[in-house]
Amino acid sequence: MVEVKFEQISPADFFYRNRDIAGFSSPARSLYMSIRELVENSLDACEVGRILPEVSIELSLEGTVGDSANEIYRLVVRDNGIGVDGEYIPKAFGTILFGSKYGFKQSRGTFGVGGTMALLHGQITTNRPFRVISSRGGAKIYEYELMIDIVANEPRIIEKKVHENKDNWRGTIIDFTLEADYSTSRSKIIEYLKMTSLINPHANISFIDPKGRFYFFRRFTNEVPEPPKEAKPHPLGVDAETVSRMAADTKTRTVLRMLIEEFQRVGEKTALDVLKLAGIDPQTSPSELTHEQIAQLVGVLRSYKGFRAPDTSSLSPVGSSFLEAGVKALLRPEFHSVVQRPPSSYSGIPFIVEVAVAWGGAITPSEDILLYRFANKIPLLYDERADVSWKVISEKIDWAAYKVPKLAPLAVITSICSPKIPYKTVGKEAIADRPEIERELTLAIRESARHLRNYLSRLERREAVIKRLNIYAKYLPKIAKFSAELADREPPEIKGLLKKIGVTDDMLKEAERSEAQEAEQIS
Amino acid sequence: MVEVKFEQISPADFFYRNRDIAGFSSPARSLYMSIRELVENSLDACEVGRILPEVSIELSLEGTVGDSANEIYRLVVRDNGIGVDGEYIPKAFGTILFGSKYGFKQSRGTFGVGGTMALLHGQITTNRPFRVISSRGGAKIYEYELMIDIVANEPRIIEKKVHENKDNWRGTIIDFTLEADYSTSRSKIIEYLKMTSLINPHANISFIDPKGRFYFFRRFTNEVPEPPKEAKPHPLGVDAETVSRMAADTKTRTVLRMLIEEFQRVGEKTALDVLKLAGIDPQTSPSELTHEQIAQLVGVLRSYKGFRAPDTSSLSPVGSSFLEAGVKALLRPEFHSVVQRPPSSYSGIPFIVEVAVAWGGAITPSEDILLYRFANKIPLLYDERADVSWKVISEKIDWAAYKVPKLAPLAVITSICSPKIPYKTVGKEAIADRPEIERELTLAIRESARHLRNYLSRLERREAVIKRLNIYAKYLPKIAKFSAELADREPPEIKGLLKKIGVTDDMLKEAERSEAQEAEQIS
Repeated sequence: MVEVKFEQISPADFFYRNRDIAGFSSPARSLYMSIRELVENSLDACEVGRILPEVSIELSLEGTVGDSANEIYRLVVRDNGIGVDGEYIPKAFGTILFGSKYGFKQSRGTFGVGGTMALLHGQITTNRPFRVISSRGGAKIYEYELMIDIVANEPRIIEKKVHENKDNWRGTIIDFTLEADYSTSRSKIIEYLKMTSLINPHANISFIDPKGRFYFFRRFTNEVPEPPKEAKPHPLGVDAETVSRMAADTKTRTVLRMLIEEFQRVGEKTALDVLKLAGIDPQTSPSELTHEQIAQLVGVLRSYKGFRAPDTSSLSPVGSSFLEAGVKALLRPEFHSVVQRPPSSYSGIPFIVEVAVAWGGAITPSEDILLYRFANKIPLLYDERADVSWKVISEKIDWAAYKVPKLAPLAVITSICSPKIPYKTVGKEAIADRPEIERELTLAIRESARHLRNYLSRLERREAVIKRLNIYAKYLPKIAKFSAELADREPPEIKGLLKKIGVTDDMLKEAERSEAQEAEQIS
Repeated sequence: MVEVKFEQISPADFFYRNRDIAGFSSPARSLYMSIRELVENSLDACEVGRILPEVSIELSLEGTVGDSANEIYRLVVRDNGIGVDGEYIPKAFGTILFGSKYGFKQSRGTFGVGGTMALLHGQITTNRPFRVISSRGGAKIYEYELMIDIVANEPRIIEKKVHENKDNWRGTIIDFTLEADYSTSRSKIIEYLKMTSLINPHANISFIDPKGRFYFFRRFTNEVPEPPKEAKPHPLGVDAETVSRMAADTKTRTVLRMLIEEFQRVGEKTALDVLKLAGIDPQTSPSELTHEQIAQLVGVLRSYKGFRAPDTSSLSPVGSSFLEAGVKALLRPEFHSVVQRPPSSYSGIPFIVEVAVAWGGAITPSEDILLYRFANKIPLLYDERADVSWKVISEKIDWAAYKVPKLAPLAVITSICSPKIPYKTVGKEAIADRPEIERELTLAIRESARHLRNYLSRLERREAVIKRLNIYAKYLPKIAKFSAELADREPPEIKGLLKKIGVTDDMLKEAERSEAQEAEQIS
């Protein structure tokens, strides 16, 4: 008989063995991912504290791996965010699936994986510890040198220092070495920072690259966005696991109170109605609900039509005016249309879709639509073709119906915000095609596209009018002159008439000019 | 000051919260994923035991979720694989990141995630336990009813039964309910089973769908492939973590013996050479290696030129003849070319790339190349555009240089086998663009494409020749007749001459026929 060995591994070991699923597949991509994850942590650390972000990134070349061509870089990321309490620093940076972010609210990070993965990548490629310096603005600054015990998924403290914080400095500094490839990833990194700055107009982001080049993305507003709040789940689309946990954890004494207090948007009337449909006595204690009752309750919650729309206070969309400003700055289009959809939800999780469609200007005509994707205010630059937005613009929209030709100067910008973005990968590059999100995107893009069609129709009509007027400009004066000669009279003053029907002096001059040119070509 | 809550979650909870990254994003996709993961576990369970696989899948409609439109299905998957020991059943099916597959050898599953995810999906959507029946062929059959404690990442045993195994039955049966959407996923499921059968020609796979339709994919060989063996890591591209673990775990007493015994393809001369370059005394005890020495050693290992190529005994490629048979059965092409590359490695992990390029026959001409992807003998059907194979055929190959027009009846089949496929997603759909894999794919496809070019050139030449001969067939007889008339002689017998230069009777007839037709059109 074949002997079979069984084994359990830690989350850190899982991600170490499968780092491609977190986006760490090559030295170039790993550098991009490391910068991304740390910048996003920094922006989140500012947002929760309503702080105007100052994020600085410094990348320098340290040497090569042995005598190979593989390069080792040092990466230092500094921010003025809320900082991390000294006691939590080792676990927060040295443990996978440990984080401050598992509340039900919108944030850039979602997994408790990204930042630690960057440090783990540094460790396994250079075998050196990483340094974290942080303070919450109090009397002390904490400085740790750490490594990750991958098998145990635990931090190993190499050194710990505590400094006096005389200037009340607040923020976090991450300092580590990693194997990387800057020359290949440079353009993606710059594009990432540019897009991030565009969608986070209140942030100052600076980057010093290994050649000493200084990139500075200055904030263009001092308005700090309202930090997203935690929200209770919306009952529509909730699953049995969530309801089971709720029934076990709730402080309420009856299933009626549980529905009212643990969900958003459920009042007493609705709760009684739901329980009646589920055949459950409203006075039942949550802890006494049977499996069958929970399954029954979930069935009703997921199909009940009377719920109010999800609460949007947990969402922080980009906002039409910001999105518009961004689109203008990025593409300088001849036409654009921004649409924000009302909040919707998938599996009880609220989300808002915002899109912009832009035409002409700095957009090069192409057969492929130029697509820019954002999710919770981070730009998504990889795996575009695997994203639900790509699916929608390439399969769900019949662009010809909106007067868009095959070769067109067309860009689509999509932005989704949600306490939970359904990414396909841990590397947060492509959003899954959840039917509800697909639908909202389709509706939003169709609406934008209708505005585009109106614009293109107007353009078409205007061109037709101009063409007609040009013909008038060319022939009316001649007809006037010819008729006058026939009648042996002075030619009538037709300039007033021409002006009345819309022919301008410029058109008349242009008509004369082209006339002269034609005459020249004939002679 | 903002209060920050920290929290650690279990791997099961992580995947519960982020099931999109395991491919469970919609009822349709979840059904596809569930069948896939269980079929792949079954095939693996047969392969390690050198068993001719008999896998049966039964899907039936159970009802709806509450009074909603969401459907509940029952899925039963049976196999005759090696079975699971009774004591391991609960953990093997009720714990995420627990599995039999973490040895360094090629298998379909890689994560210790997939099968359990299917059961977890069933549980959270229906809140019902799942049933596992298994025997290794001994005296007992074990039957469990289980649920997963997601917060703790542990199985909860609802019921356990032990049966006498009078017939020495061996295999595993998984039986559970899940929310699913068969009508939307049907075509993908059938395609998946068809492709799986194609690339596993020794397996019998049957599927009974909810309408009672019976699909049977019969084996077309009785040859069981050699099961892949475990392999030691290859030194090229190894990282510091692997070497650190090795130094901690090895039974060898010196770093010299460690290099020779723990790696593949390292002899004493090579080991001494490497240690000299790394500046490490060969007699150093592995446990006494410092961080700096390990980093130094890794640097040398990764850049050393003298290693022999990776051992391929751990790999089980499809094989050119099987791949060829599959391509013929699937596409019935007019031309095909199969190329198997020699083994290569990325980060110390060996892999083999096999590709086929096929032309004409049942392939519909299209501007998009038809791409079929396989990895460790499983078909990959989703997220094609995010896969390294797509990148290679769309960006790295200049098809025009191989005489392939824009609209072409062209298909490319790629197959990669490795003890570790670098998937981008836990759902195992797209392979990351590791530079080494990209390179091997490019070389293999170029070689196939060269064969295709030769074929297309021959075709072109043959067409040119036929065109020329057709002209001869049309005009030579006339010239002969005309000359004969001029000279007032009998026309010479030129049929022999024509035959000599390659003009066939058919060509002559065709020439006469088209002649007659032309004459008719003129009159």
